[in-house]
Amino acid sequence: MAVRFEFVDGELIVNDLISVQALDKGFFGTEYEGKKTELKLMPEEALYLMDVRNAECYRKGKSISFNQVASKFQGKKFLARYFCYRDWRDRGIIARSMEEASGNYGRSPIQRYPFQEFTCPKIKSRGLFFYDDLMSVIDEEAEGMELYEKHWFGQWGTYKAKKHGRLLKLDAYETLFLTRHGGYRLNIKEKRFVKEATKRRPDFLSLYEVYEDWRLRGFVLKTGFKFGTHFRVYFPGASPSLKGDEWVHSKHVIHVFPRESKMLISEWARAIRVAHGVKKTFILAIPGAKKESPSELDFLLYHRKKGVIETPKEDKPKFVMLALSEEEEIGGEELAGAIEKAKEFGLDLILAICDRETSITYYRVKRIELPKSKYEYYEIEWKQP
Amino acid sequence: MAVRFEFVDGELIVNDLISVQALDKGFFGTEYEGKKTELKLMPEEALYLMDVRNAECYRKGKSISFNQVASKFQGKKFLARYFCYRDWRDRGIIARSMEEASGNYGRSPIQRYPFQEFTCPKIKSRGLFFYDDLMSVIDEEAEGMELYEKHWFGQWGTYKAKKHGRLLKLDAYETLFLTRHGGYRLNIKEKRFVKEATKRRPDFLSLYEVYEDWRLRGFVLKTGFKFGTHFRVYFPGASPSLKGDEWVHSKHVIHVFPRESKMLISEWARAIRVAHGVKKTFILAIPGAKKESPSELDFLLYHRKKGVIETPKEDKPKFVMLALSEEEEIGGEELAGAIEKAKEFGLDLILAICDRETSITYYRVKRIELPKSKYEYYEIEWKQP
Repeated sequence: MAVRFEFVDGELIVNDLISVQALDKGFFGTEYEGKKTELKLMPEEALYLMDVRNAECYRKGKSISFNQVASKFQGKKFLARYFCYRDWRDRGIIARSMEEASGNYGRSPIQRYPFQEFTCPKIKSRGLFFYDDLMSVIDEEAEGMELYEKHWFGQWGTYKAKKHGRLLKLDAYETLFLTRHGGYRLNIKEKRFVKEATKRRPDFLSLYEVYEDWRLRGFVLKTGFKFGTHFRVYFPGASPSLKGDEWVHSKHVIHVFPRESKMLISEWARAIRVAHGVKKTFILAIPGAKKESPSELDFLLYHRKKGVIETPKEDKPKFVMLALSEEEEIGGEELAGAIEKAKEFGLDLILAICDRETSITYYRVKRIELPKSKYEYYEIEWKQP
Repeated sequence: MAVRFEFVDGELIVNDLISVQALDKGFFGTEYEGKKTELKLMPEEALYLMDVRNAECYRKGKSISFNQVASKFQGKKFLARYFCYRDWRDRGIIARSMEEASGNYGRSPIQRYPFQEFTCPKIKSRGLFFYDDLMSVIDEEAEGMELYEKHWFGQWGTYKAKKHGRLLKLDAYETLFLTRHGGYRLNIKEKRFVKEATKRRPDFLSLYEVYEDWRLRGFVLKTGFKFGTHFRVYFPGASPSLKGDEWVHSKHVIHVFPRESKMLISEWARAIRVAHGVKKTFILAIPGAKKESPSELDFLLYHRKKGVIETPKEDKPKFVMLALSEEEEIGGEELAGAIEKAKEFGLDLILAICDRETSITYYRVKRIELPKSKYEYYEIEWKQP
């Protein structure tokens, strides 16, 4: 017999004893007003039971439809929440209300990155800045070649053929870095340079902050254009020369998401997708000072250990879910807030994205510790739950 | 002996006879003031010769450097133009000034797409629209299933498991299409619906226009979220059922670029990259009415035929190049203008993008004819010249 429940005073209550027992065993619902004989369902649970388990909902003795129930709970991204909940449960694993979360579960491991002090060389040549290209050129051969060979600043010669050509081309981030740390002089003052660059791309200083932060810790950052991101990253000690017969390959890319900016989830996911397609670890950077931002998380997630599902009875939750939809906008600040809140519970954040066909994609957010940095970085990993 | 030339009155002139002969043979420079004994170089040609062929430039008898010459020609995306020119020449093929272009070369083939009249079914059920999710749900099982099975509107049941679940979920484009063409009724008026959707994403109506245009010509458009684009496309006759044991796979994706919007080249290229990574043909849509927009093209390109390089002496040009840089913004209108101008020459447009390391990526733009459509569509294809 299918489960049945009642819609009473805006709440979804199960009081039929067989239904109560079946649902409690399946980790649906919570005790209603302290009575073990009745269960209260979250709207997502009720709709799930109606949608895929043929449950029936009654109001004043009459059966009502999915839309009739759902229309009572319209609100912030309701369908996205529902379909994300549904997908998790469809995989045989358990999702519960955030209201059950308490304390710190200690299940959010930190990725520790290396560190190497960086001393910037002093630049003697005067460079020519090209306003419309946001690049500068050093045409003094010996110094240009050394900056490239020793410190991997700019591009000497030709990409993957450094002996072809005799110029050092520096991008806007390298140019500003060398201006600030290496006394690099140009046909333009630093202040005007920043103004020009910001006119072109309003997020220029956010990108620069991230560039500088990693560079000062010994990493080499170059354009991530070919991988659809802002930077690709080489770990301390990397050089632009062939190692044996092989080019050194970057394994990480960085995407910068300024706190004050907003982005469609579909555009954001696109950036992760390219990185994933080329098998690079996607690093999200949220530079700038932390603010208090109200952020809501959607579900407390249990997962599996050694192939066996975790349950609220025997295990601690493993993740928290933020449910999003393809056509929703998210702000850097909002995302940082959600990650922070997950951290307080000692859990990793799972971003669940519901597309226009209600298919769900999951990304796991792992915290990175970059020694001595004041900013926040996260590895974002595509996840099959 | 290396080539030498003079910088005189803002022009770059070769008058040394050996240099003139060598350069003319290599398709550099044009006759200067009708004299065959002197050549005038484009700045890009002059810098190319200095950068990779050890040419020397003299001013008043003194040798001057790359930056000294380049500083005289600073201007709109000068470096991007230079590095795109350089890369094309480095491949042993020829690029010339746009000034030499004249007439219609008849080398821009059109991709013809099929067509199938579409008659929209009439919808009897009333749907529930979820404001914050921009989706609507039909919970009447028989009609929902039929709309999905027969016309592939929405998602019935579960993605790739249609028997799991009993709801039809329609995205915003499908919802508006059925409202306008199938008498679909909702808990919201059409005008309010469009307002809500546009509030969420300002380009909503541009995307809808493209959706409607293709749907009315028998194509099925579904979300392209998994492929990083706005839509994926199935050709007329496609159905959501298994064919034998296989799902029908889409081979094309559509990205909508509204005329009035602007986008960083890096973001634009990212969308093409995802499509390329999953081996789909990337279709660019520029909906809305054509306007006259001033647009400049950069170089007239010769290519190869049967492995032999084409030259201005014996062949017609094959493409025109628009040189762009990674951190430049491009507008829909501007891009449409450049494509239009290339069309007037009867040539396909090549977009050459110079990244921050001066490495160049090429995309070829091919015109599509979608029967009875009033909009412009293009296949964008990554190209190794």
